[in-house]
Amino acid sequence: MPNYIVAPLDTLVDRLESLPGIGHKTAQRLAYHILNMSEKDARAFASAITDAHEKIHYCRDCCNLTDGELCPVCRSDRRDRTIICVVEEPKDVFALERAGDFTGLYHVLHGTISPLAGVGPDQLKIKELLARMDSGVQEVIMATNPTVEGDATALYIARLLRPLGVRVTRLAYGIPVGGDLEYADNVTLQRALEGRRDL
Amino acid sequence: MPNYIVAPLDTLVDRLESLPGIGHKTAQRLAYHILNMSEKDARAFASAITDAHEKIHYCRDCCNLTDGELCPVCRSDRRDRTIICVVEEPKDVFALERAGDFTGLYHVLHGTISPLAGVGPDQLKIKELLARMDSGVQEVIMATNPTVEGDATALYIARLLRPLGVRVTRLAYGIPVGGDLEYADNVTLQRALEGRRDL
Repeated sequence: MPNYIVAPLDTLVDRLESLPGIGHKTAQRLAYHILNMSEKDARAFASAITDAHEKIHYCRDCCNLTDGELCPVCRSDRRDRTIICVVEEPKDVFALERAGDFTGLYHVLHGTISPLAGVGPDQLKIKELLARMDSGVQEVIMATNPTVEGDATALYIARLLRPLGVRVTRLAYGIPVGGDLEYADNVTLQRALEGRRDL
Repeated sequence: MPNYIVAPLDTLVDRLESLPGIGHKTAQRLAYHILNMSEKDARAFASAITDAHEKIHYCRDCCNLTDGELCPVCRSDRRDRTIICVVEEPKDVFALERAGDFTGLYHVLHGTISPLAGVGPDQLKIKELLARMDSGVQEVIMATNPTVEGDATALYIARLLRPLGVRVTRLAYGIPVGGDLEYADNVTLQRALEGRRDL
């Protein structure tokens, strides 16, 4: 590479390049943008990173991200505490909250069982989910992603929960609203047919 | 938006979203990635931002970015000091150094004259370029981008330099090496014909 290297700039480019989906060119562009920020903005950006890291941890009950002991959902007295929706990642909670229909609690697994990636049940928050079954939970909705790993994880957890007398459900598979039959894949169409309902 | 908001996470997403080319979804994805970094990496990332901001400033001579008084190119005793290549941005120096053929010095304007964006000659490092003409410079290569603004800026600066008895040149226009005539635009083809050379 060129003999023109400014160490602090290079370090910043390297750090940005380590982010997912950011290549070398984009990292350079972002680094120049950061250099052109005001002193105040650059400081605020840096402290947003350390702040998020220091203040955010897992909710005591549902393992979602929060800056308190409990997350806002677990803290709320307007949520139905008899139903728990199990998701893979914190961003899934965000997606479901945005949809707005679900009024129960969540549980975040922080991953899926994936032997190829070396992730077993012990690395997920499954123990923490089982521990919550004492407190009057009647239904657990498995809302892991519709992938091989998501399905396997849902089945694994369902097998642990059923002996405890809890109803275990799975999100419906089918054609997405606003979608086009022509572009739906075969498996989705098969599932949509299987899951058909009376009009 | 959902009632599920964790303030420090939200701040981080906002900061990331303010970067060029980063939308809300990407900002969220990057924020989760940063949360999953080790404490050490997150701190290093944050200090890369503040470090770059504190330590990097303009080179005394060429206005390129550097962490010393002079940039590595101006500091070097192996560069030809009679020829200066004028570019728009620091990243252009990087591109030319990568190409590797140029052995002279640079001058970074930090922008182009652009009346629509409210950028006049005074906001660029043009005074600083003129001040360098005393030190035995014989040729100035205008290497601004081949755009309307880049061309206008090159012409403006050329008009200031010629009375000082300096040779002013412009990078050649033509078809890019490895390109395909079929896909070259008309203006580029016209310039390539105009600039044809004996074989």
